[in-house]
Amino acid sequence: RCFHFCKLPGRVMGIRLLRFTSVVIIVLLLVAGALTALLPTIKDDKLPNSRREPKTQSQSALDSFTLIMQTYNRTDLLLKLLNHYQAIPHLHKIIVVWNNIGEKTPEEMWNSLGPHPVPVVFKVQTVNRMRNRLQNFPDLETKAVLMMDDDTLVSAHDLAFAFSVWQQFPEHIVGFVPRKHISTPSGVYSYGSFELQNPGFGNGDQYSMVLIGAAFLHRGYLEDFQQQPEAVYALIDETQNCDDIAMNFLVAKRTGKPSGVFVKPVDIRNLEKDTNSGYSGMWHRAEHLLQRSYCVNKLVNIYDGMPLKYSNIMISQFGFPNYANHKNKM
Amino acid sequence: RCFHFCKLPGRVMGIRLLRFTSVVIIVLLLVAGALTALLPTIKDDKLPNSRREPKTQSQSALDSFTLIMQTYNRTDLLLKLLNHYQAIPHLHKIIVVWNNIGEKTPEEMWNSLGPHPVPVVFKVQTVNRMRNRLQNFPDLETKAVLMMDDDTLVSAHDLAFAFSVWQQFPEHIVGFVPRKHISTPSGVYSYGSFELQNPGFGNGDQYSMVLIGAAFLHRGYLEDFQQQPEAVYALIDETQNCDDIAMNFLVAKRTGKPSGVFVKPVDIRNLEKDTNSGYSGMWHRAEHLLQRSYCVNKLVNIYDGMPLKYSNIMISQFGFPNYANHKNKM
Repeated sequence: RCFHFCKLPGRVMGIRLLRFTSVVIIVLLLVAGALTALLPTIKDDKLPNSRREPKTQSQSALDSFTLIMQTYNRTDLLLKLLNHYQAIPHLHKIIVVWNNIGEKTPEEMWNSLGPHPVPVVFKVQTVNRMRNRLQNFPDLETKAVLMMDDDTLVSAHDLAFAFSVWQQFPEHIVGFVPRKHISTPSGVYSYGSFELQNPGFGNGDQYSMVLIGAAFLHRGYLEDFQQQPEAVYALIDETQNCDDIAMNFLVAKRTGKPSGVFVKPVDIRNLEKDTNSGYSGMWHRAEHLLQRSYCVNKLVNIYDGMPLKYSNIMISQFGFPNYANHKNKM
Repeated sequence: RCFHFCKLPGRVMGIRLLRFTSVVIIVLLLVAGALTALLPTIKDDKLPNSRREPKTQSQSALDSFTLIMQTYNRTDLLLKLLNHYQAIPHLHKIIVVWNNIGEKTPEEMWNSLGPHPVPVVFKVQTVNRMRNRLQNFPDLETKAVLMMDDDTLVSAHDLAFAFSVWQQFPEHIVGFVPRKHISTPSGVYSYGSFELQNPGFGNGDQYSMVLIGAAFLHRGYLEDFQQQPEAVYALIDETQNCDDIAMNFLVAKRTGKPSGVFVKPVDIRNLEKDTNSGYSGMWHRAEHLLQRSYCVNKLVNIYDGMPLKYSNIMISQFGFPNYANHKNKM
């Protein structure tokens, strides 16, 4: 009920205006609220672009990495390695890709032996596939992924340094195991390491791949891997091999540069002899290396060209382990 | 003179229009021509910006470098070194900065012992200044400059590799001699090499400067050096030292990153003992290193802050000289 002033003509108009304005304001607020809900979630997990300024992120996401370790038939090695890797500086989380189909994960044991420095997630797989580790895991919160084979031990010093190198080269695969392809006069490519002739660019050798079984890479490449031609998945599944070669093709194609940056490890060890399982890894299969040459040629067909590029840059840590490791006669 | 059709009213109008149009077109062409003359000359000698796409240039300018060698009182070493450096792959030209005031250059002898693989220009100086080598020489046609002291011999293998590294890091000083500064609790900085304690970033050592007496750098920094505060020139002239420290300050300030990238040399030699002149270089003066610490602190004052940043990246050539120099137990 209005009082005396409401009855004044001007005031009547004023009240109506006031009501109208109030309604308009309320409607606008509701519309604004609705629009806010429609805003896309800001995702910053795109592939790195050297032109971008660093965005403000939680320290954690930028300054730490997630370890992805795929495991098959070597749980004793896995557990030994988890004890090592759980304590690496800048580690955010561990994702164990559990390829032991139908077998219980050691999660219970893991929990009973806590507390642990970082969380570990066991991702139970339904099919034992080599490429299971290349999924775009929703558990990933960091930009950087450290991928490690379940029989490989790399020292904390090497990892801390390589991580700092990756942060300077986030669009590359920064790791410890370099390999190369070579051309032959027939046009058929072959895969190998330094025992093969250098690709002929002057002095020394070149590498064109860095294996992902001991390397840092940007999580965006896992996202990217989901959009590859079906033939790539078929190749990896057919060979149970070459997921790392495929990843190098992907990165090289995307960046137009050498896919990897090689960091020379001071202390890297293969523990496969230490396993009780008797299982000694896919690379012992007779056809393993021939398969990898086969994969290189198949991938060239699939990608309609050879995107891999050569590099001869070898990075070591200045003054470590020997504080005078850079000394010379000058 | 027009013919019969000119007399027709419509045609009269047509002719006038035609004349008018012709005059307009001619005037426009003249104006366009004049504007073309006013267009700025496209200069591509600005400092490198990692965001830029490579411009189409003559192969020569992009794929070769200019050696700048300043010399004082060591002509015998100079000539020995010229015989070495004149044959380095990818060398475009040599600029000798002749600090022997009033003395004839060896140009006549040089010419009489031709032909030579590359042209050499002797730049006669009027005052013996350390910073003479940091002029923006109009003789420079390449983006890359290799600066070398007149007593330093670096192998062709090292230079070819370091040049390829510079091409990947053109905004850095890419060279063979790393140094660092350290902070002390008093806030006073000190200059030194690896014998000084590491700056405290975990394992190993760090460097914050790469000396320009054996390094590749972008010619744009010579241009940039001409625009520094007068106090910088005064400091270099007063000490006859520290031009290289000043250059590292300049680069670090400009890029916001570590100024240098250290490439570990395989074969670098100091020939100063071989000179007949008896002159053994500025760095033998008693006060040389103290001067350099002094310079660091003065430059911090001049630039109102410490722009130098640390790096621990050491680059070597993959597979050279030992083709298995990256081998490990994997």
